[in-house]
Amino acid sequence: MQKVRFVQKELEDFCSAVFQKHGLGAREALDSAKVLVAADARDISSHGVGRLRRYMIGFQEKTILPDAEVEILRETPVSLVLDAHGAMGAPVSIRAMESLLDKAEKTGMAMGSVRDSNHFGIAGYYAMMALERDMIGIAMTNTAALGVPTFGRQVMFGTNPIAFAAPADMEKGFVLDMATTVVPRGKLEVYEREGRDLPPGWAVDRRGLTGTEPAQLLDDMFYRRGGGILPLGGEGELFSGYKGYGLAVLVDICCAMLSGGLFGPEVRDTEKAAGRVCHYFGAFRVDAFRDPREFRADMDRMLRGLRETPVAEGQKRVYFAGLKEFEAEERAAREGVPVSQKVYDDLQEIAKEMGLTLPEVC
Amino acid sequence: MQKVRFVQKELEDFCSAVFQKHGLGAREALDSAKVLVAADARDISSHGVGRLRRYMIGFQEKTILPDAEVEILRETPVSLVLDAHGAMGAPVSIRAMESLLDKAEKTGMAMGSVRDSNHFGIAGYYAMMALERDMIGIAMTNTAALGVPTFGRQVMFGTNPIAFAAPADMEKGFVLDMATTVVPRGKLEVYEREGRDLPPGWAVDRRGLTGTEPAQLLDDMFYRRGGGILPLGGEGELFSGYKGYGLAVLVDICCAMLSGGLFGPEVRDTEKAAGRVCHYFGAFRVDAFRDPREFRADMDRMLRGLRETPVAEGQKRVYFAGLKEFEAEERAAREGVPVSQKVYDDLQEIAKEMGLTLPEVC
Repeated sequence: MQKVRFVQKELEDFCSAVFQKHGLGAREALDSAKVLVAADARDISSHGVGRLRRYMIGFQEKTILPDAEVEILRETPVSLVLDAHGAMGAPVSIRAMESLLDKAEKTGMAMGSVRDSNHFGIAGYYAMMALERDMIGIAMTNTAALGVPTFGRQVMFGTNPIAFAAPADMEKGFVLDMATTVVPRGKLEVYEREGRDLPPGWAVDRRGLTGTEPAQLLDDMFYRRGGGILPLGGEGELFSGYKGYGLAVLVDICCAMLSGGLFGPEVRDTEKAAGRVCHYFGAFRVDAFRDPREFRADMDRMLRGLRETPVAEGQKRVYFAGLKEFEAEERAAREGVPVSQKVYDDLQEIAKEMGLTLPEVC
Repeated sequence: MQKVRFVQKELEDFCSAVFQKHGLGAREALDSAKVLVAADARDISSHGVGRLRRYMIGFQEKTILPDAEVEILRETPVSLVLDAHGAMGAPVSIRAMESLLDKAEKTGMAMGSVRDSNHFGIAGYYAMMALERDMIGIAMTNTAALGVPTFGRQVMFGTNPIAFAAPADMEKGFVLDMATTVVPRGKLEVYEREGRDLPPGWAVDRRGLTGTEPAQLLDDMFYRRGGGILPLGGEGELFSGYKGYGLAVLVDICCAMLSGGLFGPEVRDTEKAAGRVCHYFGAFRVDAFRDPREFRADMDRMLRGLRETPVAEGQKRVYFAGLKEFEAEERAAREGVPVSQKVYDDLQEIAKEMGLTLPEVC
């Protein structure tokens, strides 16, 4: 499918202007825009500017409050807990991660969580903030419940992604950014649009049995009639679905239990807007453990080994986590940030509504 | 299958005596025995006293060095890196975790890693050491390579387990302890003994294609001819196998990159004994984030919610991570620690060789 491409900075400025029109301050708007456009640059279009409309609805529905005062609930030299009170997710997350990186600079490591926040985009963005400071970064968030525990039939947790970034030297760094469910909701929506049955092992129906019919599943899941997406590892115990289930709960503990926010099935989207969520962030200095140059050299050795390992018959490449996305970023820097024709049409519509000019395509 | 049961303390003392006969000091021997017997008490027999013989061979083959001097490579108020120089895994791991818990008591959180160590038993043991101190505990270890990256065909990482323990109040705590491969090697061995084909999605053969023949796979994997176990999420991308692959590498980074130890395919078992490995431990105080009483009350609410969620048709219960194992522990405390008849026979053999008396069965 043909993609339309924008100069990254221009697309950021456009999104930032849209956010400012919805009441965000200049810095918050730009931070939010950068996280959004970074997703498209990294070819994670599910979290990119295609979501701009959803954020706009969030502001209109007052799920996202542009003038929320972020409150510090607890702070120590190694920790920080914030109540976002409904603020936009990206700026409060950047603020939290920056503060934790500063703390870790002094102490060696720091962690924090944020409650009552909103969709923060790609978790990897915040984890990667650690890289340029020779630190390892971690980011997690809970999300609206759509995942069913092993042997259950009701949604009890979200896609609850985990991101982990570690620096290397000549190699791109290692950046894992993964939902702990087997697939995200968006995957079911794609199959629905294409009129295809789901592969068994992605979801269960109202009875908690293998579900393959995406439209019904999405509807039942949203209205909590039963059924939902399976945790990483799939249905039952044969492929260890309880591991993905355990990881999803781990994320909820780090995000919501540590901040006192909403967790599990309490987190829900409304018909119009995304629900309030909690995040977790962590940073630690490599040199609390080891000479960072030696660490980076070993990281190079490991990542190169993975990149160059023999491939399975019929396959072209073995990747390590983050490699595809780094390559997409490099291409986006050369050729522009790609968006689909559908997203481009949306952006034109938004520009018109907002009285803004959409930047020229590359 | 009928189990034989021992009083926990008596089985620990027996194992401890065996370890002392192999040169471990009294404390190291008892620590090692406790970790081993804890696995059987928790019904994780793959890591229990059935492994005693393998440790004995490790001492005989000088893979495990009973008089190794553990060296501190780096230490800060929040971190600790040890070189075990081939010491027994459990005692150095307990020492590391205790030191990190003490550090976290003062600072709020601490992490560390250990290189050139040996098999440390169940990762959950060390994570759970945090629970009684109102802390969250984390433990990981790398293991001999037997996992194949997505689209690869050579083993590039181990089962690399992650353990994470968080305290609750009335409910048992949450204790996740999971290999990041879809199954451990022991599962393939069970299928081999029973003459069964593996379910597609557990392993790939030399060519990197779906493998179902356990004997051939185990042999090829051990001798590194190609093929091995798949990461959590299985083969290819359909069920997100790259996520388990990413988690396995995350564990290797925390364990081996941070300590400067062996990683990936460098970690290998010999024909007789298990290979040297690296560990990672972390601890953080709940009250660095939040009032621990409120935290525990919310944990209760979450865990009860999971335990009581409606079950899928045909299923009996929904568990949360660690619940089955806590229940097994309670039963072991009442009725004794279970071991299989085969392990019982091994223990009798070991007792005879060592000139020791096996405790009476319950």
